[in-house]
Order: sequence, then structure tokens, then C-alpha cells
Amino acid sequence: MTVRKHFASDNHAGAHEAVLRMMTRVNAGDVASYGDDPWTEQACASIQELFRAPGGVFLVFNGTAANVLGISLLLRPYEAVILPEGAHLNVDECGAAERVLGSKLLTVPTPDGKLTPALIASRLGDRGDVHRAQPRVVAISQVTECGTCYTLEELRALGEFCRSEGLRLYADGARLANAAARLGCSLADIAAPMDVLSFGGTKNGAVGVEAVVVMADDLAAAAPFQRKQQMQLASKMRYLAAQFLGLMEDQLWLRNATHANLMAQRLADGIRGVPGVELWQAVESNAVFASLRPDHIERLRREWDFYVWDEQAHVVRWMTAFDTAEADVDAFAAAVRATADGP
Amino acid sequence: MTVRKHFASDNHAGAHEAVLRMMTRVNAGDVASYGDDPWTEQACASIQELFRAPGGVFLVFNGTAANVLGISLLLRPYEAVILPEGAHLNVDECGAAERVLGSKLLTVPTPDGKLTPALIASRLGDRGDVHRAQPRVVAISQVTECGTCYTLEELRALGEFCRSEGLRLYADGARLANAAARLGCSLADIAAPMDVLSFGGTKNGAVGVEAVVVMADDLAAAAPFQRKQQMQLASKMRYLAAQFLGLMEDQLWLRNATHANLMAQRLADGIRGVPGVELWQAVESNAVFASLRPDHIERLRREWDFYVWDEQAHVVRWMTAFDTAEADVDAFAAAVRATADGP
Amino acid sequence: MTVRKHFASDNHAGAHEAVLRMMTRVNAGDVASYGDDPWTEQACASIQELFRAPGGVFLVFNGTAANVLGISLLLRPYEAVILPEGAHLNVDECGAAERVLGSKLLTVPTPDGKLTPALIASRLGDRGDVHRAQPRVVAISQVTECGTCYTLEELRALGEFCRSEGLRLYADGARLANAAARLGCSLADIAAPMDVLSFGGTKNGAVGVEAVVVMADDLAAAAPFQRKQQMQLASKMRYLAAQFLGLMEDQLWLRNATHANLMAQRLADGIRGVPGVELWQAVESNAVFASLRPDHIERLRREWDFYVWDEQAHVVRWMTAFDTAEADVDAFAAAVRATADGP
Amino acid sequence: MTVRKHFASDNHAGAHEAVLRMMTRVNAGDVASYGDDPWTEQACASIQELFRAPGGVFLVFNGTAANVLGISLLLRPYEAVILPEGAHLNVDECGAAERVLGSKLLTVPTPDGKLTPALIASRLGDRGDVHRAQPRVVAISQVTECGTCYTLEELRALGEFCRSEGLRLYADGARLANAAARLGCSLADIAAPMDVLSFGGTKNGAVGVEAVVVMADDLAAAAPFQRKQQMQLASKMRYLAAQFLGLMEDQLWLRNATHANLMAQRLADGIRGVPGVELWQAVESNAVFASLRPDHIERLRREWDFYVWDEQAHVVRWMTAFDTAEADVDAFAAAVRATADGP
Repeated sequence: MTVRKHFASDNHAGAHEAVLRMMTRVNAGDVASYGDDPWTEQACASIQELFRAPGGVFLVFNGTAANVLGISLLLRPYEAVILPEGAHLNVDECGAAERVLGSKLLTVPTPDGKLTPALIASRLGDRGDVHRAQPRVVAISQVTECGTCYTLEELRALGEFCRSEGLRLYADGARLANAAARLGCSLADIAAPMDVLSFGGTKNGAVGVEAVVVMADDLAAAAPFQRKQQMQLASKMRYLAAQFLGLMEDQLWLRNATHANLMAQRLADGIRGVPGVELWQAVESNAVFASLRPDHIERLRREWDFYVWDEQAHVVRWMTAFDTAEADVDAFAAAVRATADGP
Repeated sequence: MTVRKHFASDNHAGAHEAVLRMMTRVNAGDVASYGDDPWTEQACASIQELFRAPGGVFLVFNGTAANVLGISLLLRPYEAVILPEGAHLNVDECGAAERVLGSKLLTVPTPDGKLTPALIASRLGDRGDVHRAQPRVVAISQVTECGTCYTLEELRALGEFCRSEGLRLYADGARLANAAARLGCSLADIAAPMDVLSFGGTKNGAVGVEAVVVMADDLAAAAPFQRKQQMQLASKMRYLAAQFLGLMEDQLWLRNATHANLMAQRLADGIRGVPGVELWQAVESNAVFASLRPDHIERLRREWDFYVWDEQAHVVRWMTAFDTAEADVDAFAAAVRATADGP
Repeated sequence: MTVRKHFASDNHAGAHEAVLRMMTRVNAGDVASYGDDPWTEQACASIQELFRAPGGVFLVFNGTAANVLGISLLLRPYEAVILPEGAHLNVDECGAAERVLGSKLLTVPTPDGKLTPALIASRLGDRGDVHRAQPRVVAISQVTECGTCYTLEELRALGEFCRSEGLRLYADGARLANAAARLGCSLADIAAPMDVLSFGGTKNGAVGVEAVVVMADDLAAAAPFQRKQQMQLASKMRYLAAQFLGLMEDQLWLRNATHANLMAQRLADGIRGVPGVELWQAVESNAVFASLRPDHIERLRREWDFYVWDEQAHVVRWMTAFDTAEADVDAFAAAVRATADGP
Repeated sequence: MTVRKHFASDNHAGAHEAVLRMMTRVNAGDVASYGDDPWTEQACASIQELFRAPGGVFLVFNGTAANVLGISLLLRPYEAVILPEGAHLNVDECGAAERVLGSKLLTVPTPDGKLTPALIASRLGDRGDVHRAQPRVVAISQVTECGTCYTLEELRALGEFCRSEGLRLYADGARLANAAARLGCSLADIAAPMDVLSFGGTKNGAVGVEAVVVMADDLAAAAPFQRKQQMQLASKMRYLAAQFLGLMEDQLWLRNATHANLMAQRLADGIRGVPGVELWQAVESNAVFASLRPDHIERLRREWDFYVWDEQAHVVRWMTAFDTAEADVDAFAAAVRATADGP
């Protein structure tokens, strides 16, 4: 018996052929290294324009690095980051923030992965107390680890709150394209309230590239040095740039994300009303979180690959990707239904 | 007037088409992320065999990261690294070692980029003194920043000295393939005296990948975690693996390096005896270091791209790569001769 | 109106005159610096004997440093510390652990400041997952931040659990003397299950000194270097040693702690049964935590100095010290009663 | 045979009795901890006035900590420190700067321990190069490790050069009092060109205390937090303050340093013209560096305690302190003469 299809992660997918094609296209001839080449210039200028980002754009290898570099631009040594308990930066980066930034992470439990001004405020009581790391950065994920998506109003409210409190706002945008697809807005709309954010390529059809987008002009001078120091400066940068150039042809980044979101929606629709299967979170991106009977989870995993998100609560995560096929979604939804109908 | 051809760096070259082809080949279908895929297994197993490395092989994005990760496996917080003053780790990594390792680098001036037991011994006087960071790792580069190549005898002598002194030996192998080509030996021969070393792909025809090769078995358990923490774990690892798979087909890694070395030798031969042009270092890999008149340097750089290595001493560095053409070498040698013959 | 007497903190007290006297006594003449003097030798040997600590004793300036140094002996870079959410190391050290160790702290909510094997186990689920900092050290406080005291049975159970799980056990002993006084046992009894622990002098009548006590023999070699690197090596070490010599004359450390504990008990007894005043934690050391009406708290603080521990829950903390006078305790208890009887 | 008298280090001396007396005097009663007490306020205000330092004064435990804290106020993560190769921060602090700051130290060889604008300029070539840690702080020692003393003109020239180059100037003032005594100027005169400097108490008759003096107003906000994070916040701060209060009574700090300087001068005078004994550095503080025959060094060390500074060059260091007796100096000078006259 073989596992038929992955709903495990959007990084189990391969790369979109347009991305690989562009990598091949930039291959000819010598160009200067470390980003001093025309492809990098073009890719970064395009991203900068998409985000209307005065500060600049800095390509890095992966999402952990984007988070650490982005936040490193915003912190002094004694300052701390307020973020959701389940944030990738807190849970899934093997302590990179503590090691490379040396900074404390102040976590907040959230029901849906979203911070609010009130939740942030709950962590601000110790400002001025010399015994406490001082809150300075608020780090959200858009979309969140729970697959939920901040509305533009929510983002603006966070931005205003942060400005009024002297805090800086960072967004982990590993799945930012999915948020833009969901909200039907521009990347610049999402980015406007931020000081720094990342724009993920990897989970959206790239081979492996993320952009750190610096909104605040005065933060940009440090970024090239800190990227190098954080071991994220590619010598043959053209191949990172090429991936984004591929994703920006005819808005491939948006088409990929839109498709992935649609597939998640299709899956959610396909299992709606199935007895014993409950959506755990609203489906607002390319993730479906659902709870179902442990024995049903076990049976489904014999043929389908996906993660159990919460063992205690029997919550599973089903991710779709840019290349998820409708037929696979339908077959999987049918399998869920069949399992639920079974003993 | 345009700059005709790069002799600036082996990372100005593109990638070998076999590498890109392999990246395309591994693209099909879903595979598990973070290295838990058959391509990664195959690539790492092959490298491990080439090096006869009990500890294992860990792919990372670039050379700075390979150095930092490799050395991080060998150091406790209060321990220091002895290395040549001109080492990449000391000079060209924007303080990554100090930032990420938090460790002191104890530098030694060298005429040719090579450490010797005597030079290392000059830094061992402070062992046991609680006020001094304690020397623990010796870090060499093979080939060196000066393009010179340790012989196997020299490497064995370093290994024996380190073992006898309770030191660990690390080699920055960003151009290790060029050393193997030069020495006509196996990678395992070079690796035998080391505790950890890196094996560079990027400068030898890859898009961007390096391997950290762990010789000592007991060091391997920490490596996966430290790689992740150091922001070097690729989610779609198959594309890093594919690059090495491409380089290992029919020993492409060796053929590439052999060619680059030959081109450097051809260039050295082509300028031999030109008045006013002196080789600054023996040509033992894919680099030619030479001194010539400052005005001649300036004239040459109008049409050819290369680095001035030492402004004071009028030393330039001419690098060749896997794809350097004989005709370009000959044209450049002719240009050097013509310039030297001129006013 | 003046604040009459501190029940704010045991570090608001001065030093015991025996401590100052000993500092004066060691003052005569030249001695070697950095701990290579007879007074330091004597003090450390005595502490080592009290704890039956094979590894050795290392004096530092304050409690934060003792915690950071102690734990630094136990961790590799990718490893994490499990500790109570309210631990001093987590809450009150301005991120020193993250900055100096670079390590993640995995916090556990506790009702009474105490960890249990079950609470620790709740944080062990991610072992082996490369995305997660790996739990390695369990850090408790004896006595806890809540003034509670682990029994010897509880400590043994923690030690056994840690050993069986491959974890190391550290204890913040800023108030270890109070624990020994409470338990009526030797310091060696408390220390037996630990790998490393601290022994506080400052809060128990010293001017400012703590000892890092290393139980595990193999950990001691790194300690002198890490103490120096962590900026905790006193040049005129004899004055740190003298403080402990003062505290060890006729078991002054135990007499001081016993007195402070008694004063806390006396205070607890004095307010027992007062309507509206509830003990929030068992009184097991030199702290009394109680809840009372917010307006009563406010009224009391006009004349008495103490901390509000939890604004929401109206919990206050009353600390006693080695020099707290019975009369002050009685006057304060009377004030609490009078306030409670008032409007 | 016993070693008669220390000329080994000014931290082999005890504390001045005025310092101990003041520590006893501040002992009475409860005061707030962590520096929120009248003694600390008074000491810091007095030092601030002596230095005319708008930014403020922060007491720490030792000289390593003063250096690390002081420089930490001036650096961003990718910035580096230019300093003499022999600086305490580079050589004698077990890598604390690399560990706690995470910053690269760019060393400059100096004949007499002094930096000059030209020497600093030799390290500025890499500014703007993303591969290089960026020079930002110049760290000098006043007096230097070689016992030499910058003139006020030299300090002003360094200050002007740093300002014109966008660099910040830090001074390790572990023996700043000796410099003021030598120069016959105010501490404010010395401090004027600096951004931050330390003011040593320990080597000048204190038990163990140093002040970090912040000249630049905008740097002071971070200092309290970074001191705490760097494990240098004393809970019973009054005893650090008391040491400086003792040293400031009737300018004891200046009288102590003046005496120590005089004793060094007396020793230098006493050995002038002795055959085979050469001063290695000008005697400008409380240190005498001299070269003499290795067998003579060995013979002298049988009865007198001092350091061999440079084994190869047969250079020894003889330090005097606030309590060095004229008779001891004369006896030692006689011993040097007798040894030189001997076989």
C-alpha cells in the first residue's frame, strides 16, 4: 500500500516549471556575484514596486532566515518580540531567534493564530522595568499558522496600535501570496502597516527563496550587512532572483496562490456536513484544519499523507499547493467521507 | 568599451547544465521536505562514500554557512579557532563567526595562506590561562585563499599535530575539488586527517550548495539541529541534493575542477617571462596571483574583469572556472603581454 | 508620612556585621588575584564540603550570573531549558539567558512555582524533531518564586525523572539556605539530585556573592573559563570569599535563614483568620503571599513597603530577612488586622 | 624562601580602609535595591559631575564588564571594534566581547599600546564592503596596557578623527585615575573626546567596582537594561556606591593614583643606569616595563613577585599600587641592582 498524495505541506510540492525555466534562462554567461547582477536588480525592483517599499528588498534562502533577518533590523539587544505562542519563529525554528538574535520571545496564546491590540497589550505591562526584556517588535504571520488571514482592517488596527505604543510591526509572509489572493488586494495594501515583512516564494512554487521587504527607509542600510552576517548572502544570487522573476511573470505568484486557496476551499466544501468531521479553523488560505475521530485519522493516513496538528484534540492539517489537482482533492474528500461513514 | 570576460571569480560563472538538468529532473511530484527524500539520501550517501565519512553529510546554502556550521560542531563557548589571518572565515564573512558562534578567532599571518604546526604552536601559549579564549579548532582552507594547495603530507602533519595537542582540525573546502584535481588523490585522502570539512559545489559549477562533511562519528548528532538553528535547512532539500547529484555524474565535480586548474596553469604559462609580471604565489589550483605595474593593472581592467588583491603590493588575482575557455585565456595572456610591452 | 519598614525584599536588607567584619579581616596585605588566594581556597573548600560537590565551587557576583553560568555548563547550542513560567531566569533577568546563552526557555505554568515530572513531561514531546530546540536542562528554584519549598522526596523524584529522561537538573538557590532551614536537612541532601545549583549569599546577609556549585565532576573544567567569559571573575576575589567565610562562621547562613523563615511564619500566624486576608501560597520560607482587598493594599502601602505580586488577583508579597525584628512583624500584622477591620 | 612583596599587579593590593569604612557606614537599615537608594544616587551624581557626563553613570562589578557594557552601547550587530592588539578586551577577557557582544575585534599592532589616527585609518579600508564587519568603535585604554598615557592633545586628535570618520570613541579606564594624576588634569578633560569610557575603582583601592560613564546623552537609555542583561546589576547596589563614595572623599582616588605613579617613578629612578636593565616603555603611570637578562629575571623572582610580560624579549612588568611602600620600592630597586651586578 502506498501513500497516494500529499496534503502534508506546501513544501512537499516541486517547483513551478516557469521558475525552473527562468533559472535556466539566467544561466548563460558570467555576471557579477553577490547580487550585483541585472537579474537581481530587476527582481528586487519588481518586488519593491509590488510592495511600494521604500527601504528595499533582500533575498534570502529560507523562511527561518527571512524571519530572523527581518526582525534583527528592528531590535536592540535588550528588546523582545511579542508573538503568538504557535508562531513558526517560536516553535519551528530550533531556537534560531534566541541563538542569532539573542532576544527573548514573549508569547501570547491565541485561539486562531491572530494577535490583536488587546493581546499585545497584555504583554506590555513591564515596560520600563529594568529586570524585563523590553517589548519592541510585534511579529505576526500573514496567513497565520492556523491558516487564518488577517483582514486589511485588522492589519491597519495592529499597525496603528504599534505606532501609538512605540512598537514595530513585522509579518512572517511565508504564505503572503495566499493572503493577497484571499483578500483580493495588492501586496502593498498588506504591507502598508508593517515595518518589515517577508514575502515567501518557496511554498508558492519556487525552488527555495524568500524576500525580506523593508518598508521603513532608515532600516535598509543595515540589511545587506546583517544578511551577510546571518549567512544568507548567495554568491550566485541570480538564481534566487530568477525564481522570483519566474513567479512574477504574468502574476504567477498570485495565480499559484489563488489556485492553492481554491483547492483548500474545494476540500472544505467537499467535507462539509460529514458527520464527525469539524472544521477547527475558518478556511482562509491553503490550509484546512479539521478534527475527526482518532481511528478515522489513522485509517486515512494509510493512504494519504498529512500532519496531525494536535494529538489531544484530534486536529489534522491538510495543506494544498499550487499544483494540487482537483481530482486529488475530490478523491481525498471522498475518502474522508467514506471513512466517516465507516465503522 | 565593455569588459570582455571575467577572471574575477569562480562564482561569476553560471551553473553547469548537468546541474540544472538534474534540478529539473528531481522536480516531478511530491516528496517529503527537509531532506527526508530519496534524492537527498542518494546525494548524501554518495558524498559520504567519496569522503569515507562516518559522521555524515549535511547540505547547506553557501560557504559561509558551511564554515560556521562545521566549526560550531567542534567548539565549546570559551574555545577559539586558530586560522590564517587572510582566511575567508576571518576576513570575508562579515563577522558571522563572532555573531553566530560567539567565538574568538586567533589569527596567524602566513606568507602563502598555509598553516603549519609551528605557526599553530605560536598560538598555543595561553592554554590553561583563564583570561584567554582556549584554542581548540585549527581551521585551514584547502585550497587556500592564496590558491596554494596543501600536500597530503602537509595535511597529515597538521592532523597529527592537532591530535597530539588535543586540537580539532577543520578545512574550508569551498575549492576542495580543485585540491583533489591538483593532488590527483581521492577526497577521502584529503579528508582523512580532518574532524570536519566542507565540500564546495557553488564555485565548481553548482547553482548554490555546499556540503558539511563530518568525519568524527560523535559529532554528527548535533549537526541536524545546528544546521536548522543556523537557518540552513532547506525545506525543498531535493534541489540542493540535485546539484550534487549533477556534479557527481561521471565525476563532473572532478572534471570541472581539473579544467579550471588547467586554465589557470595555461594562463600562468602564457605570461611566464613577461617583463614586469611576477607570479606572487605558486599556481596550484584555479587562481593566478601576480604582481604587475599599477598603470598596467589599470589598463588591463578596462577590458577585463578581475580583482586587485593587494593595492600596496600591486598584486592581482585572476580566477578561472569550470567554463573558462582556452581562447579567453589565450586572449587575456596576450593582453597582459601587450600591456607589459607597452609604455 | 514615611514608609516605616520594608517587607519588600530580602535584598533591601543590609549585610550581616560578621560578613563586613570578615571583609575587613581579609584586607591586610597583598594576595594573588582572581581567586588564587588562601581565603578563596578556604571558602570554596568549605562550600564544597557542605554540598559534597565533586565538581567544585565558583563564586560570582549575583544571582542572574549564577543562573546563567550554572546552566551554561549544561547546554549545547541547540538545547533548551524547561522551567516554570514565573522563574526568575525567565521573568526577571532582562533576557540574559537568551543573550548570553543564546538558548530557548521552554516555560511551564505552575500553580505554586514547582515543577513536577508530569509538568516536565508535557514539554518533552518534540525531542528528536529538528525544528525544535531540544529540551536538555530542567531548571527549578529552591525555594521557589512563590516561597514554596520542594521536599527532599520531590527533589529526588525530579532527579530520577531527569536522569531517566537524559535531562540535567539545575536549581536556582538564591534562597537555598531558607530551604535547608525549612527542611531541616543538610545542603548536601538538597544538592544530591542536582547537576549544578547555586547557593545564594546576597539575600541571606551578604554584601553580594553567590556560589555556583557543580555536582558533576566532568562539568567543572569549563567553569573557570565560562565564569571569566561571562564577566564574573572578581580580580580581588578575597572579598567575595570573605562574605561566605563570614556566613559560614558558626553556621551563620543557617541561623540567618532560620530567623527569616521564623519571621515569615510569625507574620503568617499574626494574620491568620483575619477576614478578607487569604494566604495565596503555603508559607515555607521567608515569604508570605496573601490576597487582600485592593483598597486595603493601598492603605497598608502608605506606611509599609512591599510588592504587589499580582494586580489582577490582589496578591501581595511580604518578604522577611535575616534582620527582620519581631516587633516589626508584630506591628505589621497588627496593621494588617487593623486595616482589615476598617472600612 | 618566601616571596617578599608583590610588584605583580595593582589588584593584588587590598582595599583602602576608607573604602571599607564607607561600606560599613552604608550598612545600616533597609534601602531599596538595584540602585534606587540614596548612596547610589550620590555616588553616581558625583562621578557624573567629575566627568561632566550628560549621559549618566552605571556601576558594574569589574573591568571586563565595564568594557563590554560600554562598547555594547555603541555597536550594531554587524559593526566592529578597532583596538590595539594587546588590549585587555582582546587578550585578557576570555572572548567575552565575542560571546556577549557577538562582534568582531579588528586589532592593530602598536609599539607602545597607543592608537593613532593613522593606525585607525589602516583598518578603515573595508567600509561599505558587505563581506566585512564594519568598523564603528575605536577602543583605547587610558592608561594603556603598556603603562603609557595619552596626552590630552592625543586624545583630542583621536576624538576629532573619530567624529570626522563617523566612528565612536571608547576608553577602557581601568587605570583612568593614574592618567589623571599623570596629566594633572580633570577627569572631564580626559573624558571630553569620548562617547563612553570606564572609570576604574578596583585597581585604585576599591574592593571591586567600576563605573561606565556615558558622555553621549542618547546612549544612556539603553544602559540600565544592558547592564541588567549583562548580569552586572547589583541588588545591594549601595555597597558598590559606597566604594566610590570612599574613593571620592577628599579626592582619595587622585591621591591613591598619584602615590602609585610616584612609586613607579621612584622604582624607575632607582634602576636607571643599571647595566643590562633597559626601560621598555616610558614610565607614565604605575607600571614599569623593563628588559633584563633571563637569568636575572629568574633570580629576582625567587624573592619578588612580578610578571614576565614577554618571554622572548625578556620584558618584565613591575606594577605599583596605592599602598606600595617607599621602603619596598627601594629594597626592590636595590635587589635589581645587586642582581645586575652579580654573575
